[in-house]
Amino acid sequence: MNTNRYILTLSCPDVRGIVAAVSGFLAENYCFIIESAQFGDESTAQFFLRIEFCVEDGGPDHNTLKKLFEENVAKRFSMQWDIAYKSRKSRVLIMVSSFGHCLNDLLYRQKTGQLAIEIPAIISNHKDWEHVANWHQIPYYYLPVTPENKAEQEKKMLEIILTHQIDVVVLARYMQILSSALCTLLEGKVINIHHSFLPSFKGARPYTQAFDRGVKLIGATAHYVTSNLDEGPIIEQEVARVDHTNSPDDLAAIGRDTECVALARALKYHIEHRVLLNGKKTVVFK
Amino acid sequence: MNTNRYILTLSCPDVRGIVAAVSGFLAENYCFIIESAQFGDESTAQFFLRIEFCVEDGGPDHNTLKKLFEENVAKRFSMQWDIAYKSRKSRVLIMVSSFGHCLNDLLYRQKTGQLAIEIPAIISNHKDWEHVANWHQIPYYYLPVTPENKAEQEKKMLEIILTHQIDVVVLARYMQILSSALCTLLEGKVINIHHSFLPSFKGARPYTQAFDRGVKLIGATAHYVTSNLDEGPIIEQEVARVDHTNSPDDLAAIGRDTECVALARALKYHIEHRVLLNGKKTVVFK
Amino acid sequence: MNTNRYILTLSCPDVRGIVAAVSGFLAENYCFIIESAQFGDESTAQFFLRIEFCVEDGGPDHNTLKKLFEENVAKRFSMQWDIAYKSRKSRVLIMVSSFGHCLNDLLYRQKTGQLAIEIPAIISNHKDWEHVANWHQIPYYYLPVTPENKAEQEKKMLEIILTHQIDVVVLARYMQILSSALCTLLEGKVINIHHSFLPSFKGARPYTQAFDRGVKLIGATAHYVTSNLDEGPIIEQEVARVDHTNSPDDLAAIGRDTECVALARALKYHIEHRVLLNGKKTVVFK
Amino acid sequence: MNTNRYILTLSCPDVRGIVAAVSGFLAENYCFIIESAQFGDESTAQFFLRIEFCVEDGGPDHNTLKKLFEENVAKRFSMQWDIAYKSRKSRVLIMVSSFGHCLNDLLYRQKTGQLAIEIPAIISNHKDWEHVANWHQIPYYYLPVTPENKAEQEKKMLEIILTHQIDVVVLARYMQILSSALCTLLEGKVINIHHSFLPSFKGARPYTQAFDRGVKLIGATAHYVTSNLDEGPIIEQEVARVDHTNSPDDLAAIGRDTECVALARALKYHIEHRVLLNGKKTVVFK
Repeated sequence: MNTNRYILTLSCPDVRGIVAAVSGFLAENYCFIIESAQFGDESTAQFFLRIEFCVEDGGPDHNTLKKLFEENVAKRFSMQWDIAYKSRKSRVLIMVSSFGHCLNDLLYRQKTGQLAIEIPAIISNHKDWEHVANWHQIPYYYLPVTPENKAEQEKKMLEIILTHQIDVVVLARYMQILSSALCTLLEGKVINIHHSFLPSFKGARPYTQAFDRGVKLIGATAHYVTSNLDEGPIIEQEVARVDHTNSPDDLAAIGRDTECVALARALKYHIEHRVLLNGKKTVVFK
Repeated sequence: MNTNRYILTLSCPDVRGIVAAVSGFLAENYCFIIESAQFGDESTAQFFLRIEFCVEDGGPDHNTLKKLFEENVAKRFSMQWDIAYKSRKSRVLIMVSSFGHCLNDLLYRQKTGQLAIEIPAIISNHKDWEHVANWHQIPYYYLPVTPENKAEQEKKMLEIILTHQIDVVVLARYMQILSSALCTLLEGKVINIHHSFLPSFKGARPYTQAFDRGVKLIGATAHYVTSNLDEGPIIEQEVARVDHTNSPDDLAAIGRDTECVALARALKYHIEHRVLLNGKKTVVFK
Repeated sequence: MNTNRYILTLSCPDVRGIVAAVSGFLAENYCFIIESAQFGDESTAQFFLRIEFCVEDGGPDHNTLKKLFEENVAKRFSMQWDIAYKSRKSRVLIMVSSFGHCLNDLLYRQKTGQLAIEIPAIISNHKDWEHVANWHQIPYYYLPVTPENKAEQEKKMLEIILTHQIDVVVLARYMQILSSALCTLLEGKVINIHHSFLPSFKGARPYTQAFDRGVKLIGATAHYVTSNLDEGPIIEQEVARVDHTNSPDDLAAIGRDTECVALARALKYHIEHRVLLNGKKTVVFK
Repeated sequence: MNTNRYILTLSCPDVRGIVAAVSGFLAENYCFIIESAQFGDESTAQFFLRIEFCVEDGGPDHNTLKKLFEENVAKRFSMQWDIAYKSRKSRVLIMVSSFGHCLNDLLYRQKTGQLAIEIPAIISNHKDWEHVANWHQIPYYYLPVTPENKAEQEKKMLEIILTHQIDVVVLARYMQILSSALCTLLEGKVINIHHSFLPSFKGARPYTQAFDRGVKLIGATAHYVTSNLDEGPIIEQEVARVDHTNSPDDLAAIGRDTECVALARALKYHIEHRVLLNGKKTVVFK
């Protein structure tokens, strides 16, 4: 039964009859709704919908379904939409620098089936994690970045993304800033984990900033990358309690768990097509 | 626009076309869907749906809507269903014994508009909270319970429920056990707050039990009352961290906050028609 | 036994022998240590200690104890210190504007014994909560503030503080900014609840800011007031999860619970002499 | 400076002068207190103390210190006590069955320095994780257990414990029950992670039990193993929120994170000598 499961996601201006049109279309085409979630943003009059369904015997194939949907429903409501094949695993490129906890955590979740993804490649500006990549038999691209070679290395990144047919890029504590051009090109397809509870402590060394301010909770934020640093749409946040006895190193250690959890959740939502962009914010159908 | 908002809730055997039928019906009848949530329980093949909608100009009135829905949709799918008028405030009877924190919390949330309810009556087996009821100008029924007068007092409770047209009864740390007959009669309409993280520490003095076991987290559970004590369908749970320095009294004090929060959330879900019974469990559309 | 319980708090430069000197002094003077906590801040080489003890038969009275401690211990280590009589309830002045949830929460915790405080007076720039104060038989000072009368009204506040022998002032959603002079005068004695997870969303309308940024968790921060707005030493923080369906009003409603909890905890720590100032940060011995 | 750091832990009947005696002893012997925590259990009149200190130039060595402490302090107060050398890493034996998430998590925390432990051996009744052990170059002992060979295999376990000079055994989802004799022999030295929020859902398949009961939070419990199954002293607990959409498999997946976190924290407390046994409960000096 899982072999013919699909996920429909869409957004469009909010008017009466959208759900009726969509669910009518599905019923006529032998599609059985398994899970559905919708949201109408009153402040923007925009409507968001996610439906998971399976096609019963006699129903259309994936391509026919998409064609019919475009013609019969999507056009009428000016929808931005997609119908994804559920069993297809998203192909995730992980980029990492010297802190490997998020990389390791994602590899482990992939291996144990907690994250239904493929990891066809890892990129790093350091050699630290090459042995881990080797053990997992994943190609490891060592691309050190300097002001001089940055443009060139980003071209290589794009080639790697194309070659490996990457669906989503995860910056798993990758400490280089992507160029504005690359951010724009990959909009909605790059997830970063920032090691603070945004918008607190933007920029460098957030745990030291948190220590200096004497906060009682620290956090991590998973967000889409935009050309505006640390300002991209937030997907997920997590916090942990700290106290006066914790040094900046302690905060970093406690924070690492928080980062892993927030990033893994955000990526899971993304690959399950649960995250829809809503301007500078996200709709997350959990 | 809020004046014609309704909430449709239903459950029925899960088959293809339910959502299409319901949303088609709504669209045809000038109903604009504002919020929708559904759930298909694979283990029981039962389907659950909650739709909040508003009727646009030219649409049917409440009674007509209900009649049309029954004839055109509900019958066909063997639905258990209701269409509630959103602006109508639920009428809540609070029952309390000597601990008044939940009572006070509910009164405050009602007063400040956090809970859109009316509280037409308070019942207690103690006189402790009569002055609070007086201040809020709410009738306070003092019904002390003994083994001898229990049946008689429960009859009075039923009269009070009828007189005040009560929609839901909240046992806000009411420490008397309701008779099996009363529980059955009021099934799905009585919410209790149990001061433990069920199914841990059923029965009496849960905080003392928790102290003796040396747990590191304590909790509270809001659930529907059934004749099977502490076994009713759970609506909401909340926990708080404790440690070795906490006495049983400390646990009770920490627990009070947890109880207030869990109960207030459960009641809010209930009056917003977000809780649907699913056998011994609940579906909660948050 | 509770009648002769005391709490010693101190801070001083960190050297060897402090604990030995203090605990030796206590043992010699018939003082039995009930609870003790200490912290040495490696980044500032400052030492912090809190000891709760009771004086056994034959031991000195409060004043003698203080005199002896000053002469025999405090001087030698250049300590800032205090020995408080545990049974003496702190006298708390509550200041409030139009949102009364924190005021109500504190009154309830006081009444039920969760907070061992006295509330001899309430100050407000609005009349909204006068009836509540009347019901609790607490003097209510209505002091509306304009740019013209601000200095004058602050003089009245000081008089009220003196008249009622106030130990600590709580700004329970008091929406006027205190003058720099008053902040300095009352340093370490005024606790504010800020309705955001500082340092996020400083300034006005933090819930609207949070809504606009699309955060997935909102928070509240209890801190000592300093002349530097929203920058005072943080005592406690609390967060709650939100999502895309929450309006700014929803955030405010969810946030109210968070504010109550953070403020009540911070005040409890303060009156139990668990909070020691450490520059721009706090040491909190929970 | 870290080279001469020690941790003193003790428990004894609570009388006046213990802290004075201990801290006086330390001061006389050139020991500088870095961190101290104490607890007097009023219900049992037992006293617990943990002091981290460093020995300054001219102070005694480890053995001399222990000898002096026994003679001058411990005897007088009938203490159970230990002085551990802080830099010495605890040697941890991990036992695992077919679920490897806790094993993997502990290996990663060890590797990245989050847990200052050595892992000289892994025991399993399955071959599933041998390749991981090989990659980490840790001896992997495959000891399948049947009713017939159980006694014999437990003898081998003890030999492995002796050979590798193991300090603490971690049952990281090891699904065999240890014999009562082995539990007694290793009391206070075996930490188990139980995949439920004890005392809820003792015994087998706790996630299925939790699903059937319809709880809204699931949990994990790290505890010392005693011959009384699932009844040992609790060290740490953690919970995660679930809802009606979660299948038993979902609960297990969500629960795995909870288990990793609770077990890692409990082990960290243990190896830092922060956990003292108090009858059937624990004192945890965080």
